[in-house]
Amino acid sequence: MSNASEEIMLATHDALAEVGYADLSISTIADHFDGSQSLIYYHYEDKEELLVAFLEHLISGLEEELEEIDALDPSERIEAVIDLLLPVPPQEEPFRFHHALIEIRVQTPYHDPYRERFERLDERLSTLFEDAILEAREAKTFSDVDPQRAADRLLTDIYGLHYRNVPMENIERIRDSREWIAEQIQKWEETP
Amino acid sequence: MSNASEEIMLATHDALAEVGYADLSISTIADHFDGSQSLIYYHYEDKEELLVAFLEHLISGLEEELEEIDALDPSERIEAVIDLLLPVPPQEEPFRFHHALIEIRVQTPYHDPYRERFERLDERLSTLFEDAILEAREAKTFSDVDPQRAADRLLTDIYGLHYRNVPMENIERIRDSREWIAEQIQKWEETP
Repeated sequence: MSNASEEIMLATHDALAEVGYADLSISTIADHFDGSQSLIYYHYEDKEELLVAFLEHLISGLEEELEEIDALDPSERIEAVIDLLLPVPPQEEPFRFHHALIEIRVQTPYHDPYRERFERLDERLSTLFEDAILEAREAKTFSDVDPQRAADRLLTDIYGLHYRNVPMENIERIRDSREWIAEQIQKWEETP
Repeated sequence: MSNASEEIMLATHDALAEVGYADLSISTIADHFDGSQSLIYYHYEDKEELLVAFLEHLISGLEEELEEIDALDPSERIEAVIDLLLPVPPQEEPFRFHHALIEIRVQTPYHDPYRERFERLDERLSTLFEDAILEAREAKTFSDVDPQRAADRLLTDIYGLHYRNVPMENIERIRDSREWIAEQIQKWEETP
């Protein structure tokens, strides 16, 4: 990725956190960027094309982080992924960025290119959870839990926590729920 | 509610299911309505005021249905509420209406009046689940589960199922997950 592209991605992040998806435009992105609006148009035809590049950028960033935690044992790995996904913000900004992502995801019925990226992300995350649970089962550190189902439920929980609490800015409930996720993992660890 | 207001609410439902939240306008609502656009403006100042009335209308409709199932025993009551909330559509239309509701909910950071209605709805649903679980515990039909926490998690699951699957129109996954919710209730019923 060129320097200009990198800077446009950063500016997109900041603009999304500030104005949200609905009010995002090439012009609001340019306000967060040292170059000109026409430089953005030189790289991206329109807002959709730019946001697809932004989603790709986010997903590859996440994938790099996921590779780093790949060496952890299964329980720690699951918790590390949840740490990456759930916002526990000390300030308001990350909350608003997470909200902008929810807004983009909700646009998937109207934008196939967004949909493809979110499906790829979901697939990646659920495979990751499934593999971790399977590995722990084989090492006999987890009890006899169905990896596919448990992974599916874990991901649904994370989505529920996002969608229920991010728009309402309910930090407290996200913090509490981290506890029941940790308890769920502990339950899997209790081999009967 | 006057006849005209009732008809405007119906037209709002149909317009939301057809065009979604972002493209909803007094004019698209009027297209689904036998009266004139000015009759809508006579009742509601703008789209926000109309949508607040629509949310109120939905919530009171839901509350009436909730009263009807109040006589069921706790497990059946919980399952009946979930039936009311989760779309299991034979056709596409209800799915798109559910999606429009997600779009409105995501607007809560920008519209306090929407936020208040959704908070009231959440509160109502979580109290309902909590009461049902508490009642079943007292009648010793449920094992020793924490009612507040279990209710909270159930509601988060329902939100997760919505947000993860409705935009992707993944009917299959919603259907599957109804099974694990039923299993969860069965587990509560297994008194140790």
